[in-house]
Amino acid sequence: MKSGPEHNNKFEISRDRDLLQPGEAPPSSENKGQAAEEGSVGLVQTQYVKFFKGEDKLRLECGESLGPIEVVYETYGRLNDQRDNAILLLHALSGDAHAAGRHKPDDTKCGWWDIMVGPGKAFDTERYFIICSNCLGGCMGTTGSSSINPATKEPYGLSFPMITISDMVEVQRRLVEHLGIEKLLAAAGGSMGGMQVLDWAIRYPDQVAAALPIATTARLSAQGIAFDAVGRNAILRDENFQEGGYYRTSRYPAGGLAVARMVGHITYLSEEAMHTKFGRRLRQSQGYRYDFENEFSVETYLDHQGSLFVDRFDANTYLYFSKAMDYFDLVRQYGCLHEAMSRTKSRFLVISFNSDWLFPPRQSQELVNALLTADKDVSYCNINCPYGHDSFLLETKVQSRLISGFLRQTHERLQSDKPGIQVSVSAESRARPETATYHWYGPGSIFTGERVDHRQIARLIEPDSTVLDLGCGDGQLLALLQKEKNIRGMGVTLGEEDIVTCAESGVSVVQYNLDNCMSIFADKSYDYVVLSQTLQVIRQVPSVLRELLRVGEQLIVSFPNFAYWRGRWQFTFKGRAPVWKNLPYTWFDKPDESVNYMSILDFEDFVREQLKARLVKRIPISSRTGRQVRLLPNFFADEVIFVIADKSDGSVRQTGC
Amino acid sequence: MKSGPEHNNKFEISRDRDLLQPGEAPPSSENKGQAAEEGSVGLVQTQYVKFFKGEDKLRLECGESLGPIEVVYETYGRLNDQRDNAILLLHALSGDAHAAGRHKPDDTKCGWWDIMVGPGKAFDTERYFIICSNCLGGCMGTTGSSSINPATKEPYGLSFPMITISDMVEVQRRLVEHLGIEKLLAAAGGSMGGMQVLDWAIRYPDQVAAALPIATTARLSAQGIAFDAVGRNAILRDENFQEGGYYRTSRYPAGGLAVARMVGHITYLSEEAMHTKFGRRLRQSQGYRYDFENEFSVETYLDHQGSLFVDRFDANTYLYFSKAMDYFDLVRQYGCLHEAMSRTKSRFLVISFNSDWLFPPRQSQELVNALLTADKDVSYCNINCPYGHDSFLLETKVQSRLISGFLRQTHERLQSDKPGIQVSVSAESRARPETATYHWYGPGSIFTGERVDHRQIARLIEPDSTVLDLGCGDGQLLALLQKEKNIRGMGVTLGEEDIVTCAESGVSVVQYNLDNCMSIFADKSYDYVVLSQTLQVIRQVPSVLRELLRVGEQLIVSFPNFAYWRGRWQFTFKGRAPVWKNLPYTWFDKPDESVNYMSILDFEDFVREQLKARLVKRIPISSRTGRQVRLLPNFFADEVIFVIADKSDGSVRQTGC
Repeated sequence: MKSGPEHNNKFEISRDRDLLQPGEAPPSSENKGQAAEEGSVGLVQTQYVKFFKGEDKLRLECGESLGPIEVVYETYGRLNDQRDNAILLLHALSGDAHAAGRHKPDDTKCGWWDIMVGPGKAFDTERYFIICSNCLGGCMGTTGSSSINPATKEPYGLSFPMITISDMVEVQRRLVEHLGIEKLLAAAGGSMGGMQVLDWAIRYPDQVAAALPIATTARLSAQGIAFDAVGRNAILRDENFQEGGYYRTSRYPAGGLAVARMVGHITYLSEEAMHTKFGRRLRQSQGYRYDFENEFSVETYLDHQGSLFVDRFDANTYLYFSKAMDYFDLVRQYGCLHEAMSRTKSRFLVISFNSDWLFPPRQSQELVNALLTADKDVSYCNINCPYGHDSFLLETKVQSRLISGFLRQTHERLQSDKPGIQVSVSAESRARPETATYHWYGPGSIFTGERVDHRQIARLIEPDSTVLDLGCGDGQLLALLQKEKNIRGMGVTLGEEDIVTCAESGVSVVQYNLDNCMSIFADKSYDYVVLSQTLQVIRQVPSVLRELLRVGEQLIVSFPNFAYWRGRWQFTFKGRAPVWKNLPYTWFDKPDESVNYMSILDFEDFVREQLKARLVKRIPISSRTGRQVRLLPNFFADEVIFVIADKSDGSVRQTGC
Repeated sequence: MKSGPEHNNKFEISRDRDLLQPGEAPPSSENKGQAAEEGSVGLVQTQYVKFFKGEDKLRLECGESLGPIEVVYETYGRLNDQRDNAILLLHALSGDAHAAGRHKPDDTKCGWWDIMVGPGKAFDTERYFIICSNCLGGCMGTTGSSSINPATKEPYGLSFPMITISDMVEVQRRLVEHLGIEKLLAAAGGSMGGMQVLDWAIRYPDQVAAALPIATTARLSAQGIAFDAVGRNAILRDENFQEGGYYRTSRYPAGGLAVARMVGHITYLSEEAMHTKFGRRLRQSQGYRYDFENEFSVETYLDHQGSLFVDRFDANTYLYFSKAMDYFDLVRQYGCLHEAMSRTKSRFLVISFNSDWLFPPRQSQELVNALLTADKDVSYCNINCPYGHDSFLLETKVQSRLISGFLRQTHERLQSDKPGIQVSVSAESRARPETATYHWYGPGSIFTGERVDHRQIARLIEPDSTVLDLGCGDGQLLALLQKEKNIRGMGVTLGEEDIVTCAESGVSVVQYNLDNCMSIFADKSYDYVVLSQTLQVIRQVPSVLRELLRVGEQLIVSFPNFAYWRGRWQFTFKGRAPVWKNLPYTWFDKPDESVNYMSILDFEDFVREQLKARLVKRIPISSRTGRQVRLLPNFFADEVIFVIADKSDGSVRQTGC
């Protein structure tokens, strides 16, 4: 059992180490005295500031007051003259103010999000001014239970008041104001940091242009609370815990804290990641030792993680932070998520990871659903990455491009002050047709690089309207409509690469499956719902199309005409299932998702008999000429666009809590 | 912290309580002195017996010897005269010999598997003689670390030798012999019990007719070991643990054991089950208390579970059992799973639960794969049940019927001594056509209750051959072939209800997806592979069919002919996608899985050009008459059966480790 004088409130002591004094100039991003590492912010220095002094105490959510509060923080990059490029990073349970770079040239470890923060990285320090502070209640410099209570001159211990995510945000807000920033370009963070992002966006909607809650939740599940409870139990039941008053004794609850960390660590990884990293490998010998020493590599690893944590983290802060996470519950606080999200004004980029089982993607999707229902600007990606909850600290390939594209678009909008209009569609994203769900280009198309049906659909859409594009692929159609018709668009697609392209071109998009996402959209919440070359992949056609008619004023559907003469010819006279340019797949070799084949007449029957909807317009086209086909369209058109609408008077269903 | 004289080796004391002495008659299944509960074995009594006395010590896997060993066990039902109806139940980590019934009329709790053991239940005590013993190393009566070491007259503590799953089985084997049983009808158990089942079947293949490994694995994953390590760490780091020598002191590692149990308990449940059971409910108040007491219901529950466990379980046994599970590794022991499973002779029923994340279904599937590769008789079902790993202790609806049908069939075969022939197909299972994947019955069929293509396919199959039926539905075809042609059959299907029906009618079946299960079958391991009305749902047609040709000497495929004249008529002259009796689904309303439509000519092209296989036979049929169509079959036949085979000389790929 690890215990001894080295644990005598080292957290208190660490507060005085290497800190800039108030008034001292913060270090610049450039490395001093040695060559800068590629993409690194270089040497950085922690700063501190004291708030809530004298009578000006912080009124906490639990009812108590707290002050003074010291805050430790770091900054990277430069605040621009407009002061509109500041990004606040929020750390997770075991994080601190040191997000990037090194404190000393020989530091073996960089800041906790160094892979994401630096020149040219996702949080690009050449564009943005990045701020990161240690949270209230922490043990890395900011006031917490290891701090000296000015009233008693003793460390707070468990007499430190219970703090919540909102309390953390209050302290950060004071810091942001102190730095002279009225409105943040963005607040971003994973896990507990993501909870703070949500609190920022809900309670200070005018002070956050973009919110990036990553691998987080509006409230922990029962399982999440249960794991936290085990960690707390391990600490509280440790005989050395001494009701939190261990700071000035020679005993420290090292065993309990280590066990808490070990449990935590398992939940931060995925089963797959652990399998890949450790499998059933033994630490040393070939054979079993038949004793209770650490024998499997994974045991040694966990033990090591536990020991490292005991050396750097305070058991009481573990209790306070885990409890703050358990308490965080937007549903409880606002009645429902819809109400909570209705209060926001930020653009949202929500990110989850498919292997994260502690903050599962489902929980991020609940956030996204609420944002969509509240008609907010949201993009969502569930990144395919095997590292579990820790993915947000490890994955850069997709995450960086998403964040980087999203931040740049948000910053441009902020600067142009005309949201939704000044969208630049990069030539690169236009020139990537192969990422579209359907590869359909009329060879004689007069619209180079665009799909024939896109141009036809664009003609049907009124300027300044709202458009929901289902199966939007890389967002070409929405980008076109945003640019030329000033529409407010929203896309739904499945491909990760498509989501990145959308983020880079300023198209809001969520990574949802069409078959089960429609219920989240409010009645008549869009002027147009577009289903362009996507009807083929819908599984529950009648129910989904009914939902689309509910959500949109008009529904625009395009698909290849199954009864095109070439197909009939093959089928009738050759006795073979039809295959031609627009339906190029043989029966045994078509994409998994492609299931529906229908003719113009089939669809008309369906609209009339099944949907009982109104056929507003029918545009049979020839993909060869790009023009409308007027003679025997079900025979001569290989492509068709329908516009349909509800017959009902459109009494609107209530949405909300 | 719970500690005190009540923990002074109560496990040692419990061994003397209420036990039948050797020679005393065991109680009968009938309840004495009070009305028997419906389906209950009633009042039962624990018995004990002592083995490995004197020089006859048990040689353990770790190299040490142990003896004498007392074994505590219970039995329910009666051993029949042939002594072929004995079933051994193997318990999990926290279980004991008390599997069913009550010890005293006022016992509030029944045995740990009471829902499955009793008259008319899955393990039917009116048919079978059920045995359950406390495992070696346990703390519920059988010799373990809380027992008195005869050499020192003190409790063993950590001087108790490390035991393995095989050591447990050795002791059980002595017990089974002692009860006068040469061959068990079955060995069954979940979790750690399932590991024992596997060890039984591998090391004593002639002594187990049927093996039922449930919710188990051939080896724990890194994550599984990690959770065990956390539990052990919590105990080992408890200051009251005293290196396992706490029995005769006033201190007991209650805190550590409770934390271990809490972690364990989370892993036994699923996230969904915890959400349903507790959600984020608070224990008492409406508002947060802002302290570190148990506040959420889930915390109280875990704390309670921890306390209960501390009262009934020995911390050392927790260490020994969890280590035995970590050590269990059939791959390590036998070089590969294939080699391990090749040694078995039992019929297998492998069961997993889709919400079990501690022993995930994937691990059961690895077992099943190895059994299939080794050409063993195996059935597998992944039961849809939300309760996580604990499902095997809670789910009865599917599990009971599966086990009950499987045991009855095994017992009948054992008694007839002619495996694979005496299969009774119940009238009930024949009369359930709606469970078949495809609902295709010629209305004029002369074979009442059977599919026309089944009778045609049966004619193609030689007696005494082997048949793999992919998409076998409820196993009608295989049952028919087993009965009339004495084939050895194996089915693959997805429906849970179908799996149950197969088990009840003696058809071996695994619940696998056709698209990714083929690689497990060895080259030419079946005379016939049948794809009856299943081609329509295959996703990767070319690769799957190539695999089928590899696995079977001949491949028999039946499907509806897309180019049947009724379809052509509709398509050509009405311009609508074809719909008729055999292809009854409209484009917008067909089953999710149905994706492929092909004509007789399409398939012939495919066999020739893509598969480059040999067309052995083509039987176009009319579903109306059930007869072959000779005139213009691609026009007049609505159904077709193909027999195809490899062109190659059939050089056989090696399978194995």
